[in-house]
Amino acid sequence: MNDPHVLPPGKLIRLSELSTRGTDYCDDRDRAEAQFFALRDELAEWQHRLYAEGRRKLLVVLQATDAGGKDGAIRHVFRGVNPQGVVVTSFKAPTKVELDHDFLWRVHNAAPGAGMLGVFNRSHYEDVLVVRVDRLAPEEVWQARYEQINQFEKLLHDTGTTLLKFFLHISHEEQRERFQARVKDPSKNWKFSHEDLVKRRQWDAYQEAYDDMLNHCNTPWAPWRVIPADHKWYRNYAICRALVETFREMNPQYPPALPELSEVEVD
Amino acid sequence: MNDPHVLPPGKLIRLSELSTRGTDYCDDRDRAEAQFFALRDELAEWQHRLYAEGRRKLLVVLQATDAGGKDGAIRHVFRGVNPQGVVVTSFKAPTKVELDHDFLWRVHNAAPGAGMLGVFNRSHYEDVLVVRVDRLAPEEVWQARYEQINQFEKLLHDTGTTLLKFFLHISHEEQRERFQARVKDPSKNWKFSHEDLVKRRQWDAYQEAYDDMLNHCNTPWAPWRVIPADHKWYRNYAICRALVETFREMNPQYPPALPELSEVEVD
Repeated sequence: MNDPHVLPPGKLIRLSELSTRGTDYCDDRDRAEAQFFALRDELAEWQHRLYAEGRRKLLVVLQATDAGGKDGAIRHVFRGVNPQGVVVTSFKAPTKVELDHDFLWRVHNAAPGAGMLGVFNRSHYEDVLVVRVDRLAPEEVWQARYEQINQFEKLLHDTGTTLLKFFLHISHEEQRERFQARVKDPSKNWKFSHEDLVKRRQWDAYQEAYDDMLNHCNTPWAPWRVIPADHKWYRNYAICRALVETFREMNPQYPPALPELSEVEVD
Repeated sequence: MNDPHVLPPGKLIRLSELSTRGTDYCDDRDRAEAQFFALRDELAEWQHRLYAEGRRKLLVVLQATDAGGKDGAIRHVFRGVNPQGVVVTSFKAPTKVELDHDFLWRVHNAAPGAGMLGVFNRSHYEDVLVVRVDRLAPEEVWQARYEQINQFEKLLHDTGTTLLKFFLHISHEEQRERFQARVKDPSKNWKFSHEDLVKRRQWDAYQEAYDDMLNHCNTPWAPWRVIPADHKWYRNYAICRALVETFREMNPQYPPALPELSEVEVD
């Protein structure tokens, strides 16, 4: 697998130096969209096999700037999979009960079981993002979390979960356009709130927090992928391709028949 | 809405008198399949609106004879919805912890939240089916459950959940053919076990238990639909149609913009 979006291990990166447009990799939208539809059908087939195999797990983690396209990516990439084998968990502001536990408690609870494809819309990474930017915890608390996250993800990896972490990377201008569209379009109003404007003013603080998250938690067992996401067609294509290539390597199989059942005549 | 599969309230029914083939309602497979694809697209649009509205809930309950097509129905009907707004719960044999609680405890926990479409693959009805046929509880225990279920479903209904209960009805011969296909087809072996053959020998006891379940729990707030399911194309079409017609009645709407946000210029 040769995915240009996987961050190279051990090399410091800065989001400001990475493309948000992705046309370095592919500038032919028609071709990418045609491939996307074929990849999406292949994804549905692989997911069915993962479920039938009933042994390993796949966990997709989506993080992004606001309006970065997490919801849209889930809607488009996972259209076609069998919802029986897919669990999407959207992590919102933690409840009182969740805050009474360590920050990984609710996340661990949502980890996919055998044969399942889990999707995290936001994740434990919020605990080094919004928590840091809004100073919801002291620095020594969120600083310790990078290593805690790495060890947690290692546990998942070592016990049969393949992790695919995507950061959807959009530009400041692209965010402006998407927010404005949410104001204008009645079918998108519900996605827009005052809080979005507050967070937009914290853009630089978030970019710094993203940089640290990407650099501190880019491990061999759970590397980050930074997806140029200004173009939705490119974003969907790149995520779907990474998923399908991961599945091709995992190569889940239908379990064979029990020998004593292979000759049964049902009456 | 005029759904021929809804059981008439207050009238005793027997499964043995109901068609498993469904061609009384539609014998034009090509037309039904074309309509099914259009209905499935409409279903995805409605589900998105339910999610955006974020207020009401829809719960689909699927029960069937073994090989009756629950998994296939979920895979085909719900292909296309956004897995972020859909939670499928497959109820297996209860765990030790679940058995330490009342039979509705784990079911209540899986009830869909605001804006969500929940799908139960098997359900609390197993507690008046396998529990009865295999004598896992005394008769007075499972007899009391019909009314307990009715009251539980009334609570869900009264607090914003629309319930759609489907019984997938296949013939004894159709089950034989499907089991035999699972023996022969390597991609289906994993769905077949010794237990299936044991349960097939209990066919008559299950039909009796189904009859009682359908008659005792066919309430105005949660009526049963019996879907003729020997033809998979008819089953998928009938389920999808009932879902879409229910959604048309519910008619969920995108929430309007907050007045103070409707003129915002994002900078």
